[in-house]
Amino acid sequence: MSDRIYYLDHAAATPVDAQVLAAMQPYYSDNFFNPSSPYAPAVAVRRDYEMAKSKLASTIGAKADEIVITAGATESINLAFSSAVSHVVVSAIEHDGVLAAARRINYDKAKPTHKGIIEPATVASLITPETDLVSVQLANNEIGTIQPIRDIVSVVEAERARRKEAGETRPIYMHCDGSQGFGQIDVNIARLGVDMLTLNSGKMYGPKQVGLLWVKPGVKIVPVIIGGGQERGLRSGTENVAGVIGFAAAAEKAYTHRKSESERLQNLRDRMQQDLIKNFDDLIVSGHPKKRLPGSLHISLPGIDGERLVFSLETEGVLVATGSACAANKGTRSHVLTAIGMTDAEADGSLRITLGRLSDDESLKTATSIIIQHIQREKERVGRA
Amino acid sequence: MSDRIYYLDHAAATPVDAQVLAAMQPYYSDNFFNPSSPYAPAVAVRRDYEMAKSKLASTIGAKADEIVITAGATESINLAFSSAVSHVVVSAIEHDGVLAAARRINYDKAKPTHKGIIEPATVASLITPETDLVSVQLANNEIGTIQPIRDIVSVVEAERARRKEAGETRPIYMHCDGSQGFGQIDVNIARLGVDMLTLNSGKMYGPKQVGLLWVKPGVKIVPVIIGGGQERGLRSGTENVAGVIGFAAAAEKAYTHRKSESERLQNLRDRMQQDLIKNFDDLIVSGHPKKRLPGSLHISLPGIDGERLVFSLETEGVLVATGSACAANKGTRSHVLTAIGMTDAEADGSLRITLGRLSDDESLKTATSIIIQHIQREKERVGRA
Repeated sequence: MSDRIYYLDHAAATPVDAQVLAAMQPYYSDNFFNPSSPYAPAVAVRRDYEMAKSKLASTIGAKADEIVITAGATESINLAFSSAVSHVVVSAIEHDGVLAAARRINYDKAKPTHKGIIEPATVASLITPETDLVSVQLANNEIGTIQPIRDIVSVVEAERARRKEAGETRPIYMHCDGSQGFGQIDVNIARLGVDMLTLNSGKMYGPKQVGLLWVKPGVKIVPVIIGGGQERGLRSGTENVAGVIGFAAAAEKAYTHRKSESERLQNLRDRMQQDLIKNFDDLIVSGHPKKRLPGSLHISLPGIDGERLVFSLETEGVLVATGSACAANKGTRSHVLTAIGMTDAEADGSLRITLGRLSDDESLKTATSIIIQHIQREKERVGRA
Repeated sequence: MSDRIYYLDHAAATPVDAQVLAAMQPYYSDNFFNPSSPYAPAVAVRRDYEMAKSKLASTIGAKADEIVITAGATESINLAFSSAVSHVVVSAIEHDGVLAAARRINYDKAKPTHKGIIEPATVASLITPETDLVSVQLANNEIGTIQPIRDIVSVVEAERARRKEAGETRPIYMHCDGSQGFGQIDVNIARLGVDMLTLNSGKMYGPKQVGLLWVKPGVKIVPVIIGGGQERGLRSGTENVAGVIGFAAAAEKAYTHRKSESERLQNLRDRMQQDLIKNFDDLIVSGHPKKRLPGSLHISLPGIDGERLVFSLETEGVLVATGSACAANKGTRSHVLTAIGMTDAEADGSLRITLGRLSDDESLKTATSIIIQHIQREKERVGRA
């Protein structure tokens, strides 16, 4: 493999930011105390932990005691789904965590448009008097489409109003999996209007295996992990102090720079997209042209073998994905691409390119030209040049 | 507070070992890749992760694919209890995690002797044809008593044989919470004979919020966290690579040095115990005199206010606990001390002293004399000198 690496898979994993790591270090060594211990150094650790939760909460406009710290987005999603018992509506392009949790209950899937948008009307058509949870992601991890969460919330609110009117007592909540997009777009609980929100530290240059579920006051969830009663009884286990300090530092940094970073990524992405379109007539760019994460670029070239391309690009240090890391690992075709109506040939000829902090002007130019060369070579190989 | 700290609460938390932290660092920065991604640097991360699991497994005489990585002992315990549906037998002095999990099912508690031993006969008397799980800890986190796990397993095996004979098909498993004791005593699955074993990285100088559940081949558990299907479908969520690398390094070090460290701690503990006994006629030392973790020293002085003592000792930098960090934080009396038959006055006059790597000869001598002074002062205050 090449000595130089061009990392274009930020949706799969992000490196821990150097400042974030520096903030975490003291909590492994000097400040290692159990935050539940009574003596002053442990009380100081507890205070730092609570402060970090406050910081974290403030990046989404929430309060510290409304967030439950978890071991990542998957656990947060499992916890959010504990509120549902009878029927849930999820989008067909959710992450595996949401789909697996939904399968435990009676559920319906809302189909996206070809651009990957979940229309509020589609969600409305699936809600029944039995529905107790609607779960739609903030932005898709493969094609980058940003969902009209606020409008979907309006649908949920309308159903809530109808039930109140009809004297029905079943609650209905709206959960949003915000694993992808924090630091690129606005994530604010008041503006989104949701009842629960999942965030993932490992996707925003924080440590992995740390996440949170924000739960609106009044929303009833059932703990998934029980024991010592930490996190107000909603998630037991000795607190991950270093992890939460890191998560908060990462969230704060991503929040502070989101406008400039978002603009920077969009410029880089748009240029790469144009360069690719210029070179290949048959190139399909998926996701919504405008409502799309600034760092996301999903392309397909029917007839090309996307997987083969990933490995050939790797020889020159260009790291991209064919789809989400979980799905790719299982060797199955992406449920997202199928849901937006892609043919098998289009889906199999796909590359997911996700830019982030490791992407800069110069490296992107080089990576783009390597990608163009390799696509040309692959097209020649399959006789589609 | 004093500038110098004498940390005598290793059962509540241990600092991350410097070598462990050094081993983890590269996985935050250079090797940050998602282990499910297809390209070579990610495949290398996957290999390192699997190697770390192998190392971890080998410290208990197991194989890598028999362990499920979790976010700590509490989650491991919740996962172990997923195997039970009808009736469980737990000891009355288990950690809150086990007691909380048991409460979800029909359960009975085995009472300990005054020395904190769970007699196999007591467990046998509580097992019914409905029992599908027995859970007893390796060693108690408050009084340090080491349980006769192998003999309790024999009781479970006898019941298994009886069922086979009687044509009953309900399985019965034995889980052991080994959170306390790893690195001080032998923890080997073949010698213990258990079906499931929980270990906790945060109690063995590894990172917090990492744990494992070893599951004997053939034992059926149900995943608690579902989603992307990681850990062979038994625990979903992007892998905590840095955490597991650290856990493995910590377990290997603790395993390698367990004999010398155990001897060292026992010498320190015994001398401290003798010094305290010499000074106070009414001192009660709890736990089994011999079958006790080498670093554990639980003392009670009836009439003394243990909590007050914790805070007065803290002014001179001596950090001890009154009980487990979780219980102490809730301001409730320890269920362990009540179970071994302590009076309220004895329980309230308790200190839990747990030695570990931060304890050395010189600091222990100083800490002991500070503890003696403060007990004397407290005895004078309450008119019991």
